[in-house]
Amino acid sequence: MFFSKSFIPILKNNPTEAKIKSHQLMLRTGMIKQSSAGIYSWLPLGFKVMKKIEQIVREEQNRVGVQEILMPTIQSSEIWKESGRYDDYGEEMLRIKDRQNREMLYGPTNEELVTEIFRSSIKSYKSLPQLLYHIQWKFRDELRPRFGIMRCREFYMKDAYSFDISDEEAIYSYNKFFISYLNTFKRMELSAIPMAADTGPIGGNLSHEFIILADTGESKIFTDKRIFEVDSSNTLLEKNSLSKLRENYEKYYSVTDEKFNNNEFEKNVPKDYRLQTKGIEVGHIFYFGDKYSKPMKASVDYNGKKEFVKMGSYGIGVSRLVGAIIEAKYDDKNEIMKWPISVSPYDCCILPIISKNDNSNLDKAINIYKNLKKLDLDVLIDDTDENISSKIKKFNLLGIPYQIIIGKNFNEQKIEFKEVDKQPIFIPLEEITKIIKSKKSN
Amino acid sequence: MFFSKSFIPILKNNPTEAKIKSHQLMLRTGMIKQSSAGIYSWLPLGFKVMKKIEQIVREEQNRVGVQEILMPTIQSSEIWKESGRYDDYGEEMLRIKDRQNREMLYGPTNEELVTEIFRSSIKSYKSLPQLLYHIQWKFRDELRPRFGIMRCREFYMKDAYSFDISDEEAIYSYNKFFISYLNTFKRMELSAIPMAADTGPIGGNLSHEFIILADTGESKIFTDKRIFEVDSSNTLLEKNSLSKLRENYEKYYSVTDEKFNNNEFEKNVPKDYRLQTKGIEVGHIFYFGDKYSKPMKASVDYNGKKEFVKMGSYGIGVSRLVGAIIEAKYDDKNEIMKWPISVSPYDCCILPIISKNDNSNLDKAINIYKNLKKLDLDVLIDDTDENISSKIKKFNLLGIPYQIIIGKNFNEQKIEFKEVDKQPIFIPLEEITKIIKSKKSN
Repeated sequence: MFFSKSFIPILKNNPTEAKIKSHQLMLRTGMIKQSSAGIYSWLPLGFKVMKKIEQIVREEQNRVGVQEILMPTIQSSEIWKESGRYDDYGEEMLRIKDRQNREMLYGPTNEELVTEIFRSSIKSYKSLPQLLYHIQWKFRDELRPRFGIMRCREFYMKDAYSFDISDEEAIYSYNKFFISYLNTFKRMELSAIPMAADTGPIGGNLSHEFIILADTGESKIFTDKRIFEVDSSNTLLEKNSLSKLRENYEKYYSVTDEKFNNNEFEKNVPKDYRLQTKGIEVGHIFYFGDKYSKPMKASVDYNGKKEFVKMGSYGIGVSRLVGAIIEAKYDDKNEIMKWPISVSPYDCCILPIISKNDNSNLDKAINIYKNLKKLDLDVLIDDTDENISSKIKKFNLLGIPYQIIIGKNFNEQKIEFKEVDKQPIFIPLEEITKIIKSKKSN
Repeated sequence: MFFSKSFIPILKNNPTEAKIKSHQLMLRTGMIKQSSAGIYSWLPLGFKVMKKIEQIVREEQNRVGVQEILMPTIQSSEIWKESGRYDDYGEEMLRIKDRQNREMLYGPTNEELVTEIFRSSIKSYKSLPQLLYHIQWKFRDELRPRFGIMRCREFYMKDAYSFDISDEEAIYSYNKFFISYLNTFKRMELSAIPMAADTGPIGGNLSHEFIILADTGESKIFTDKRIFEVDSSNTLLEKNSLSKLRENYEKYYSVTDEKFNNNEFEKNVPKDYRLQTKGIEVGHIFYFGDKYSKPMKASVDYNGKKEFVKMGSYGIGVSRLVGAIIEAKYDDKNEIMKWPISVSPYDCCILPIISKNDNSNLDKAINIYKNLKKLDLDVLIDDTDENISSKIKKFNLLGIPYQIIIGKNFNEQKIEFKEVDKQPIFIPLEEITKIIKSKKSN
């Protein structure tokens, strides 16, 4: 993509309405544009990041055997009356009357609808477990939407649901999501810690939030530092290995403030390991047994007896993760962003020094651009006649992790190549592509 | 995927509420499930088809240089008041009041919102043309939703918008979409004809509908048969070649009933070439100049003067195409569906004959399954103990174009391989994979 042809409307300065750094950077680099309070359009740069996050989430769901479906955004109120949540949910639910005056709503979550789909499709315990997910827009009518896409009204979320015959099997399903969440966040170069959490309006008695550390986080967290050392990498997708993994995490005290108890914290965590900080929730998993299956009569035949299925639900905020990654990776003091390569809008950028009467550097840049494209690398080339220091400043904000700079001393054997936040090195193109390719395949 | 683990809830008989064959087949094979009037959930089989269609649409948009963005589903009424369409649109617009009592709506189309994004981002004619698209859920509150996802309320659509400085440039953009639509439908093995069409509530004076022939179509069409012979394959993405292509189509009379004039039909089409039949609209493109840019003041600087940009819009019904393909490809008399391989939910299925006390055919099937997976083929294996004739009947409905049947006379060198709607042949596995792979890469 040529920068002059792209739709990346960059702002000169930080917009004053934005209070946190992800909101600032996303508006400033033209990733999003507000269309009304708490509702955003995703412009090409932001869209590309969100799509890459979505694809990682999808692959990690598929890997543990969850099947993808897609439920609609607009739901009937009837199933919410069955579960008893229609009145409970309050004003955050966007309620709608259609032209026939039927009560509809914009789904804030999908426990009811997926239970309805399950109960009309699956009749026997032999078809269990069933693990289903979808990635769809949700709406929560926040009274005071703020922080850009971090606390907005229309947001993009992956929500999954599990259906099992017994508590034991249901915990096995729960643990599959537990490992899949760890793997998902790891691929985005985030270190997310699973923390015992409250279940809130979803219900149930077993729940973990996945939290990444960030000074700007909304959640206070209290944790044993040793939890960062737990290694999940050799976990197998079978019952014992998965329970062992959860035990390895759960032996360290680690909670959000809703669950915090100072006595327990001090009793369980030696002084040197205590960490009290802030974090951002990026995922949340729940086990709630028959909370929905019982009122909604979702049962299966089990040797001639009707058994209510045991359910859990599992959410990842896909659009929210775009902001969360910025909060974790953006150095706003020095105005330098660096996207993890797995979600970066482009793999590499090329910044030629172009003067009014001399296009030779642009030609060299286009040559390199074509070579990188052939190798399936996605490249943004800055073909504008801005001076090179403005270009570098701009691209430091855009956050593409690798920059190739083409100036007056250009030498094919020693091309200036810079990883954002590191010193430039001078190497031939083959070595540059080797570095990027190897980072991508990690 | 193993059939016993899949979420494909098949119905024994055609559901009585479905009047057309796509609606019947989609309910019967568990592709969709209605959640309320005119609103559907997409189950795994239907979801996979829709995603493949979406991806083809995306690739063909990208190929002609359209950039992907994503606008929200919920819009503010304000921009619709600016364009003057808020009152005009009528009851099909789903109008919503949020908790602050603001007038919102579920977008039925996006001319206003994209114009708002454009005008606040692009200031100079030097940044033109800009071609933007998104693939997003839309809502039209149909009074009588019917025919399943063919005429529903919540539907998935690709809509694109072009912004140019002059009529001439704008027609060039229009023609880029013209070729991209032909290519898009060709990849789905549909022969879609571009027909001069009315512009309706979108406005403007140049418009084409892309129509595929189907007896169950809602549109009456009148056409010169020679239009089916027009060859678009060597068209280049430049002005002259694209106008030439449109001329080649436009020299043949071809209209929907809104534009039909019997005198012209008889004058322009020799008797032997006249065709009067029915069709399904799968795409629609419009050129409407400054219809939106003028009232919404979307202008760019052109050598010191403000010029309103010239706009067009371009839609493809992504969810609707799932139904349209079934209408075109499903032989409901013989209950045989055959998906084009490019959008088929799976590349191939394996149907072993399994008797109660003998799993040997299942083992052989699993072996073949693993080999095909290694070659990146997506395979559904029927591991249930249904008898083989039920299996074949069921899979003829599912429409996966290739079947491998494993029975008592199994022979590695002569595996029974059947293309749906053809006679079985007996060949080794390498030849089977060669056939499927070569069909996929077409």
